[in-house]
Amino acid sequence: MDKIKDKIRSLNEIPATMYGKDFLLTWEKTEAELRSVLLTTEILQELHAKNISTRIFESGLAVSNFRDNSTRTRFSFASAVNALGLAVQDLDEGKSQIAHGETVQETANMISFLTEVIGIRDDMYPGLGDKYQRQVIAAVKYGYDNGILAQKPVVVNLQSDLDHPTQTLADLAKLKEYFGSLENLKGKKIAMTWAYSPSYGKPLSVPQGLIGLLTRWGMKVSLAHPEGYELLPDIMSLAEKQAQDSGGSFEVSNDMKSAFKEADIVYPKSWAPLSIMRQRTELVQKTDFEGLKGLEKEALSMNARHKEWECNAAMMAMTRNGDALYQHCLPADISGVSCAAGEVSADVFNKYMKETYQQAGFKPFVIAAMILLAKVKNPAEALAELIDQNKKRQFIV
Amino acid sequence: MDKIKDKIRSLNEIPATMYGKDFLLTWEKTEAELRSVLLTTEILQELHAKNISTRIFESGLAVSNFRDNSTRTRFSFASAVNALGLAVQDLDEGKSQIAHGETVQETANMISFLTEVIGIRDDMYPGLGDKYQRQVIAAVKYGYDNGILAQKPVVVNLQSDLDHPTQTLADLAKLKEYFGSLENLKGKKIAMTWAYSPSYGKPLSVPQGLIGLLTRWGMKVSLAHPEGYELLPDIMSLAEKQAQDSGGSFEVSNDMKSAFKEADIVYPKSWAPLSIMRQRTELVQKTDFEGLKGLEKEALSMNARHKEWECNAAMMAMTRNGDALYQHCLPADISGVSCAAGEVSADVFNKYMKETYQQAGFKPFVIAAMILLAKVKNPAEALAELIDQNKKRQFIV
Amino acid sequence: MDKIKDKIRSLNEIPATMYGKDFLLTWEKTEAELRSVLLTTEILQELHAKNISTRIFESGLAVSNFRDNSTRTRFSFASAVNALGLAVQDLDEGKSQIAHGETVQETANMISFLTEVIGIRDDMYPGLGDKYQRQVIAAVKYGYDNGILAQKPVVVNLQSDLDHPTQTLADLAKLKEYFGSLENLKGKKIAMTWAYSPSYGKPLSVPQGLIGLLTRWGMKVSLAHPEGYELLPDIMSLAEKQAQDSGGSFEVSNDMKSAFKEADIVYPKSWAPLSIMRQRTELVQKTDFEGLKGLEKEALSMNARHKEWECNAAMMAMTRNGDALYQHCLPADISGVSCAAGEVSADVFNKYMKETYQQAGFKPFVIAAMILLAKVKNPAEALAELIDQNKKRQFIV
Repeated sequence: MDKIKDKIRSLNEIPATMYGKDFLLTWEKTEAELRSVLLTTEILQELHAKNISTRIFESGLAVSNFRDNSTRTRFSFASAVNALGLAVQDLDEGKSQIAHGETVQETANMISFLTEVIGIRDDMYPGLGDKYQRQVIAAVKYGYDNGILAQKPVVVNLQSDLDHPTQTLADLAKLKEYFGSLENLKGKKIAMTWAYSPSYGKPLSVPQGLIGLLTRWGMKVSLAHPEGYELLPDIMSLAEKQAQDSGGSFEVSNDMKSAFKEADIVYPKSWAPLSIMRQRTELVQKTDFEGLKGLEKEALSMNARHKEWECNAAMMAMTRNGDALYQHCLPADISGVSCAAGEVSADVFNKYMKETYQQAGFKPFVIAAMILLAKVKNPAEALAELIDQNKKRQFIV
Repeated sequence: MDKIKDKIRSLNEIPATMYGKDFLLTWEKTEAELRSVLLTTEILQELHAKNISTRIFESGLAVSNFRDNSTRTRFSFASAVNALGLAVQDLDEGKSQIAHGETVQETANMISFLTEVIGIRDDMYPGLGDKYQRQVIAAVKYGYDNGILAQKPVVVNLQSDLDHPTQTLADLAKLKEYFGSLENLKGKKIAMTWAYSPSYGKPLSVPQGLIGLLTRWGMKVSLAHPEGYELLPDIMSLAEKQAQDSGGSFEVSNDMKSAFKEADIVYPKSWAPLSIMRQRTELVQKTDFEGLKGLEKEALSMNARHKEWECNAAMMAMTRNGDALYQHCLPADISGVSCAAGEVSADVFNKYMKETYQQAGFKPFVIAAMILLAKVKNPAEALAELIDQNKKRQFIV
Repeated sequence: MDKIKDKIRSLNEIPATMYGKDFLLTWEKTEAELRSVLLTTEILQELHAKNISTRIFESGLAVSNFRDNSTRTRFSFASAVNALGLAVQDLDEGKSQIAHGETVQETANMISFLTEVIGIRDDMYPGLGDKYQRQVIAAVKYGYDNGILAQKPVVVNLQSDLDHPTQTLADLAKLKEYFGSLENLKGKKIAMTWAYSPSYGKPLSVPQGLIGLLTRWGMKVSLAHPEGYELLPDIMSLAEKQAQDSGGSFEVSNDMKSAFKEADIVYPKSWAPLSIMRQRTELVQKTDFEGLKGLEKEALSMNARHKEWECNAAMMAMTRNGDALYQHCLPADISGVSCAAGEVSADVFNKYMKETYQQAGFKPFVIAAMILLAKVKNPAEALAELIDQNKKRQFIV
């Protein structure tokens, strides 16, 4: 409990500037704000482990709006809002009347009369996901300002075309724990690399989110991918600038090996070429199913030219002391397990299974932290109050 | 808070006759009962806005049974039951074993062992929706009377083939707020008119529900629609009679303009011809998909003959001072926004956006009010108790 | 309340050996453990009826993983976990990323970070369902042992290829109530028979579960089915042995009439031939849809040779005093109601409707009992605490 109280003291030293704020992109947040998310994450996780209730709500809804498939983020969101006392309500756009051509302005208000948070995944269409999230934010602001909504729901990005902040902050939380502190990340080399996958259409948000986040802590971020798999130029520039500012570095190559060399952390993960994702968006908008089939074939054969981009024992041997931390946002395409050939060999994956699962385990608490920081005026005080009231999560044991 | 206490005093003057009662049709309720629904709606909405918990349940289920698409009513129901402390459980008839040919008698009991309320939407098939809701009521009564259920779930009509009471009472709540009181509605003219829509198969429950409800308050209800779009004769007669009793009027025409003339309120909304809905029911029962396609074509071309039934600036100019209140149950078919040509022009819709959204905002609290009135013996006392206990909805702020 | 307190005293005399334990098969549990499930079931049901909250959790998730359709078990699970204070989260494998080829090891952990219980139905594929449940158990044990999960979710079998314990214990709870005590079941004859159904592919778990459970209480279990509808040999041997140990009997025939003769209870219910279920599993794995169609035809024609296996008035007349208790897990195929010819005639079904519905009504409380026994160290004390704290389920009445 002393550890928790220390963390609350640290949190108390950071100005509480996230009250009422949405969370879309990590690079829209200050470092202090990101530190407060991590601290709150750790505190909530500890309280959970100690069977102390983290509810701050007696009732209220949390809308879950997934425009792409999800298991872990869906459950992470459900867990997070439940831990705060809210009930999940899925906005299932297939079952709703949204097909009628209803505006985002209207839908966003209609689902928000008693809603405290809206979690949105919209990651498949470049140029659209982040835009949609901002439309929802503007819509509920309109509702709140015009006396339509008694409270303004906070929007949490559960993966857009640009960023995947609940994932990358979980990744960072794991790095912080693994290396002892954010300060210890200074000078550490991470290989953020593309890896081969036999599937198609994976979003770019994770690699983009990671270069956009990790370059802020003085890390040496080494991005590698085959030609044709470039990330968004704006985010590349941002990463470059942040690396300079933080005293780290950001290098880009088409060589997985040079990225892995002497790396402290590796994050090998497949993603689709941006050009393919853009064509896909157009074809989906035209409902051109023949075109989509052709595009999938093209994309898969493009991927197949890079089967050697696999994270295996030989690759890991090149990292610092042959012992880098392997990270992945999961699920990984594991060669011989979930596919014939994929992103990672089974031996490497299994060696780090515990680590990647723990990494994922931060996500529910990252989401809960984002919401709590937006909902309470003084987070350190609120968390101290949770300890003081000492309500048990399981109160009859 | 004084305003809330005044309302509780007013509620206390109305005999509490809704305990244990289902809510299917407004015209099965007395005016006093409808007044108590409105008062309770307003009180619950105020308590919500003041961050006071309105939970009366520690646990319990609320079954959501939607046999037609829904966004706003689905969320309104979810919000309402959450605000009372219940958890939503969807009865998804596709996922269930109901396809086996299970009886309503059985299903209704099987889902009700710990259930406090069942919300049902079944609006697409004339002659069937209201009937189904009454079957569910009879079934849970059987269960309760025979010691199968420890509590009798209350059934709330979330739209049937006859009425849509949670919508029309939200509409009435908005009128009460807009004009200051129910008494002030006396003599006000409302144009309840058909409007053109490029979609097909919209239920008749809203216009039927509105003529069945608004004629009770001394209003001048002017119903207008093209030939062939008549409402159910029984409800027409009822509206006629109620208008006479209340000192209002009920007139019917095939002329949108005469309805709009000097109207204080306009409610232009599309619906399907009853004959089409009946044919559709037969074709669905025969699973005659070819027939359904043909019918849709016929219906759309029938609609298309009445494209001039649009609520636009010119039409609005005819209303009292050119300034009638525009109402709609949403989503509206907005010309140039959600469709090429529809029920309402974008300028008119946008001018009244705030009003229609607020109108929709009453619905969660109308539903909560209906449930609360069925679940507590003395509603005024119960609401006073909520204030006294002063439990906060968000209790750590 | 005295009755409840008596039951708590009885429960207190049974060693609490179920803490932390999963519930897959009744025959993995001792008789004392099954008695404690029944007592806890009855206590929770009484507390519910007396409007006393049975919540032991302030928050937490309950994962519902249905790999086959369900209405009553789905609602029973939802009701049970709600009554304990948990929120249901469906693991819908269609909407998730599991299609990516993710391992059970991974999914089970990813959904469990804040999860207290996982309810699983996986009943359609012989050799697979129970196996899957054990994989989930091993997976969350790995997670708990490796600091990935702060708590180990308990797995509850909501129907596997082998057993359907929440159903059979509800059946047993009804028998206990109907005949006054478990002791009174000694010497009672139950006819567990196949019955004709015009549908195909019903699992074997109910008859297997019943012969595996009822033979433990000194009952005379008479199993009858047409040739070709044999149950799993291992469970047959188990039933045989248990019957000997308990002083009951277990006989098997291909004659419905001899089974019904002088029976105190009859449980006529259709199931598929094991050989068909096995072929089906292979065809599904090969996604051989043509083969599946052929198999369905074969299975239905096989069933159709046994249309005389119907529970009707003539059959019931053969039972003890013509007045045996009719049981069914529901939904039954009722001749002339849910199908032309089925498992039971309408007159017999209707005569016992109240009884079968009450039988089903035990299920939510059986599930809640299984979870409570796994989650609290001293169940008798925990239940006494619920009474002492006297929190009302509906606390504003």
